[in-house]
Formats: sequence, structure tokens, C-alpha cells
Amino acid sequence: MGVVPPGDGPGRAIYLDHHGSTPTDPRVVAAMLPYFVEGYANPHAAEHAAGWSAAGAVEAARALIAALVGAEPEEIFFTSGATEANNLAVLGAARAAGSGRRRVLVGATEHSAVLGPAFALADEGFTVERLPVDGAGRLDLGAVRARLGPDVALVSAMLANNEVGTIGPVAEVAALAAEQGALVHTDAAQAPCAVPIDVDALGVDLLSLSAHKACGPKGVGALFVRRGTRLRPLAHGGGQEGGLRPGTVPTPLAVGFGEACRILSAEGSQERARVAALRDRLQERLLAAVPGARVLGAPGARHPGNLSVLFPGCDADALVGSLQPGLAVATGAACSSGTPSPSHVLLAMGLSVGEANSVVRFGIGRGNTEGEVEHAARVVGRACRVLRGVG
Amino acid sequence: MGVVPPGDGPGRAIYLDHHGSTPTDPRVVAAMLPYFVEGYANPHAAEHAAGWSAAGAVEAARALIAALVGAEPEEIFFTSGATEANNLAVLGAARAAGSGRRRVLVGATEHSAVLGPAFALADEGFTVERLPVDGAGRLDLGAVRARLGPDVALVSAMLANNEVGTIGPVAEVAALAAEQGALVHTDAAQAPCAVPIDVDALGVDLLSLSAHKACGPKGVGALFVRRGTRLRPLAHGGGQEGGLRPGTVPTPLAVGFGEACRILSAEGSQERARVAALRDRLQERLLAAVPGARVLGAPGARHPGNLSVLFPGCDADALVGSLQPGLAVATGAACSSGTPSPSHVLLAMGLSVGEANSVVRFGIGRGNTEGEVEHAARVVGRACRVLRGVG
Repeated sequence: MGVVPPGDGPGRAIYLDHHGSTPTDPRVVAAMLPYFVEGYANPHAAEHAAGWSAAGAVEAARALIAALVGAEPEEIFFTSGATEANNLAVLGAARAAGSGRRRVLVGATEHSAVLGPAFALADEGFTVERLPVDGAGRLDLGAVRARLGPDVALVSAMLANNEVGTIGPVAEVAALAAEQGALVHTDAAQAPCAVPIDVDALGVDLLSLSAHKACGPKGVGALFVRRGTRLRPLAHGGGQEGGLRPGTVPTPLAVGFGEACRILSAEGSQERARVAALRDRLQERLLAAVPGARVLGAPGARHPGNLSVLFPGCDADALVGSLQPGLAVATGAACSSGTPSPSHVLLAMGLSVGEANSVVRFGIGRGNTEGEVEHAARVVGRACRVLRGVG
Repeated sequence: MGVVPPGDGPGRAIYLDHHGSTPTDPRVVAAMLPYFVEGYANPHAAEHAAGWSAAGAVEAARALIAALVGAEPEEIFFTSGATEANNLAVLGAARAAGSGRRRVLVGATEHSAVLGPAFALADEGFTVERLPVDGAGRLDLGAVRARLGPDVALVSAMLANNEVGTIGPVAEVAALAAEQGALVHTDAAQAPCAVPIDVDALGVDLLSLSAHKACGPKGVGALFVRRGTRLRPLAHGGGQEGGLRPGTVPTPLAVGFGEACRILSAEGSQERARVAALRDRLQERLLAAVPGARVLGAPGARHPGNLSVLFPGCDADALVGSLQPGLAVATGAACSSGTPSPSHVLLAMGLSVGEANSVVRFGIGRGNTEGEVEHAARVVGRACRVLRGVG
């Protein structure tokens, strides 16, 4: 994407909503294309060579995904995305738990795709409890310890928050859960662009991934299921993915997801540093341009591309709306947009409704440039001044 | 795909497994590409113009899918494929049914993605019954009438069978079900290439579609849900698709599915006639080449691209295996391949296990040519003679 000229001339929009979705890396598109027009046989067609070839591509992709997170390929199960992976993890683990484990603990700032299935379990006889966070969105480990017990089936604690970017203390939560024999799930949808991931270092039993949050294609994700972990499937059919997730694995999407993971394994560290530098520059410029602006999230443990800013006295909807179509930024989680209620993440961090409605989320990613963040800071600063009547 | 030369020279394989999956039409690929590299914003990002643009593309695709089946756009819900659509229909309708409706009826020759969820309902207090078929795979309407009652929640009867191509009496089943207030679902995964589809003429409440069986991309499908039909979702999350199916709608796949439907709306009738002529030619050649060969399915009501043939005295696995890598044909439903048990469809039609293991499914589709079916008939005929020891 080019830089939108500061004037009124034509130009392409600046995209700073990489937590909502990411551009598909051109290398990912190139990897997928042959599987649309040539390698289109059903990868589960065990009778013919065209099927074997598609299956080989799927398995190669599975290995690349596993490698990114330090798992074995047979611990990776393809899903349609992180929402399905989260549902499969939360519903599947709880439903497969022994009758003595009827409590489920979830972080208060989890994505709706974790909170939704967790609270749906209340209809199935489970007690579901929210774990509190501090003002930076970090889980309160004391509360985790206090609520854990031998009657807990599952704890779900996200790795990188999608609104404020806070990196969660997942390994610490997992260690506490292990003492009580509870399973641990982490929603890592935002994590591949944020931190190196190692399922053993984290100590989790279940980990959800999304391709389209990591420059892969939309419509595919994966669930890491540690060997020996029991899950009940959400659906039933042709026995694919070991019976855990039926339906034809979409070869092109699997291949694209694999390529996205290969790129992150090779270039992720360098890219995170580049993105963090852009984010820090944007932060500096915005704080200078808008008096009173405040950065949210955990200062020392934030997604390198995340910048969530409270602009006091500016309605975020009005602010972002005034910038269309030139700048794509978010006022809340894209997935829950359309619902007029303020962000549950920001409220859990102790913000007032008024404050929550003054927060803009900038999500920086692979395609962004220095010029783009400089320009974004200028137009946002100007729009804030207009909204505050000082422009 | 070119024709494989009759000799031993190099050449590309002939693909006759279009019921397993289909090539993605180049026009579909062209329609999708811009949404990978440019229109990649999250279609649920309601705050910015990039999101609005993606949402517009999704809604245009929804309208094209609806138009193919005579539905309203708001009655079309995107899923990851027909397996998920079938699960959502069967599990969702049964779980939402009143407490007085605790029986579910399913055709004996349904796909495993219908039988699987239906029989899983037995664990939830439902009584699940298989509806018998005749020797051509047609549902026995007398049995449907006899089993229907005011305690039936749902009847599921497929539109076009994936193994023998029989077109089911769905409208007749729906009329009988309506008398008893039962919902009717039809698995139409194979149907768009087989017959014109009109949800009102069929009288169904729920209809499942798959893009990749109709020259669209893998990883996307849809469920038609007639307005007013109550379903319980399988998963929970960000509220997309009216809360019925959470998760980011994959813009490129939705657009590709829409384009596949547009092509079928425009060209389906002509294509079905072309494919039927190829199928009839292949049938004629195979019956001439292999004495005793018998065609399965309903003579007057078959998928135009389906040719399911019993080759007595030939083990289908050995036959198909001997043709690799030159010819892609199936011995059973691809989705249940890898399971060594004989096809439940063929057994329900009254075939013995030995007969079922001698059946080869030819699936003809968009890319095939006269030369390909002529060549396929020759190599299959030769392979049968070798297996019978007369080659």
C-alpha cells in the first residue's frame, strides 16, 4: 500500500487494522494458486494419485504449522479459523471432562469466541467464571490460583490480546492449572505476529491459531491438541482429522496457512522488530499530537504491532468515521463490531464506558511503512483537534 | 486437462472424480484474487471503508448463491462447507425443536455428514431412524409416510446422491413432512451440477451447499435456512451470520462461491446436457468393453455426471489402483475413504459386500472432453480384462 498524500489528491488508504485481518502475503497466494487450478483433487481421495498428491500438500502444510509452535504435526488439526478452534477447544474439552470437573475458568478479556462457548456451557451444567485482569489487561495470577481446584475442567487464557495487545502470563497459568489437573487452552490467534510460540514452554494442552491474522488466507485455522488430550468433536462426518473435525480439508487454504507459518518461522523475529519500531514511532507522534492521549496495555509485554490509545474527549466512532476512506483503524474488536456496547476488554481493565468509547486501536503489520505511520499520526491528530473544537 | 495419449508417453492424468471435488473454475479464481491481495480487510470491520468494501463483496456473493437456489439473500448462511452445513442443519434443528418432537428420520443413503450428526443425537435423547431405499437408491415414500408423525423434529433427504447419483424425491418427502409439522433438510452438496434447484418448489426448510463440488473453492459452503426456521448454533463468538455461525466470513471464498453460482445460473443447463452426453458415451463404451458390467442408480433420475458401475469379478480397489497415476476415479465416497468397510449406500440398495467392493464411481464434470472419456473406457476395459485373467 502506498502512502496517501497529505493533500486531497487521490491515493490508497492506509491500512492499520492488522488485528482485524491482514493482507495475504503474495508468497502465500503463489503457494495456494496451483491447488485451485491443478491440485484440486479431494485430499481424502485415497484411491487415486491426484488425491495422494493433494494429501501430501496438506501434510507438508501441517508440518510447517506444527514447526511454528513447536508441536508435532499429528497434534495440529485444521479448522475453519480461530473461532472454530476456540469453540472446539472450550466445548470439546469441557464435554470430554470427567463428571467431577464441572467448572471452567476464562480470562475476562478473552475474545468472544472463547467467552461465547464458555458461557454456553452453563446450559450444560458447568459453572463458568471470569478471571479478573489488572489495569493493563494482565491476568491476576493470585485470582487464578485461588479459583483453581480439582473440580476445574479447563482454564482458557489468551496469549496476545486482540484489543490492547497485552501478552498474557500463559505459562504461569498453565503451571498453576497443571497442579490441579485442569486442562489449559490459549487463544493464540493474534500471537504469531507478536511473540515466538512454543507449546512446551507454554505448557498448554490446547492452542488456537488463525491464518488470516498472520498474512495467511481467511477460512482456515488450526487447533493444537497435545497428544493424549481428550476432546469431544463439535460435528460428525467423514472421519477427517482423526474424527475430531469432519469435512474436506481445503488444500489451497492449508497450503497457504503452511506458507504463512514458514514465512513467520523464517522472518518473524526480524518482522516483529520492524513493526515494533513503527509502532513506537506512531505512539510517540500521537502522544505529541494529542494532549492527554494515553496508551493502553502492558508496557513491557505488548504485541509489537498493537497501539491502543485513549483520546480523552474524542468519541472514537466519530473520530474514525471522520477519517474514512483514508485510514483503516478500529474502535473495538472487529468481530464484535456492529454491537453498540462498549468493549468488554476495556471495561474489564477498569475503564469507564466514556473512556472505552474514546479508544482507537491501531494495528501495524507487514505492509506498513514509516511514511504511513507518520501520515496516520498527522491525520488523527488533526481529527482530534477538530472533534475537541480546537482545530 | 489434456487427453492422456493412449500409449505410454507422458501425459496428464484424466480426472473423473468430480463428485470428490472439482477444479476451481478459472473465473472463480480470478474473482477471488483481488480479495487476497487488496480487499483483505475484515468484512465485519464496521468502522472503516476497507471493511465496508469487503462486506459489500460478501453480500453480493450471498445474493448470487441465493439466486441459484431461489432463496432470499438473508436466508443464506455461510459455513466452512457442506459438512458443517449438514451438521448445523441436523443438530441445530433437532436441538431447537419442541420437547414433543424427539424423533429424527434420515435416508439410509445420506452422506456421513448427515448420518453422523443424526446418530449423535441419540446421545441427546432423540430416536433416530433410517429411511429405506429401493435398489436404485430412491427413498421409499410409503416408509416415509408410515414413519412420519407429530413427534418428528426433522427429516433429512438428500437431493443428489454422491455415490450413485440418484436424484431423491425431496419435494414429495417435504410435502409429507409438512403435514406433520416436521422440518425438512436436504443435503444438496452434489446438486448444483445435477439439477436446477428451487427451495420453494422443493418445499424444504434447510438446504446444504458446498462450493468445491461446483467448481468453487474448498473451505466454504452455505446453509439455506427458510425464514422463521429455528436452529441452535454449533458454536458461539462474534455474532456473525446473525449469530448462527460465528467467525470471520472468508471474503475471497465467499466471492468465489458466488461466482461459481453465477456461472451455474448462467450456464448450468447447457453444461448439464454436455456432461450427460459424455456420461452416456462413457457408459455405452464401458458396457461394451466389460461383459456383465451393470450401471447403478435411478435410470430416469440420475446426476448427469454420475456413472457408478458394478464390474462383477473385479475388485474395485485393485482395478483403480492399477490405473494410477493416469486416471482418477473413485471406489466409494472420497470423504469416507480410508475406512475399509464397504459403502453403506450400496449396501442399503441391496448389493452384497462382494458386489459393493466391485463398484467404480466415475464423476464427469466441467473440464472433461470426449477424448478423455473414450480413453478412460479403453483403459478401464483393459484393466478389467487383466483382473479377470482374460487380458
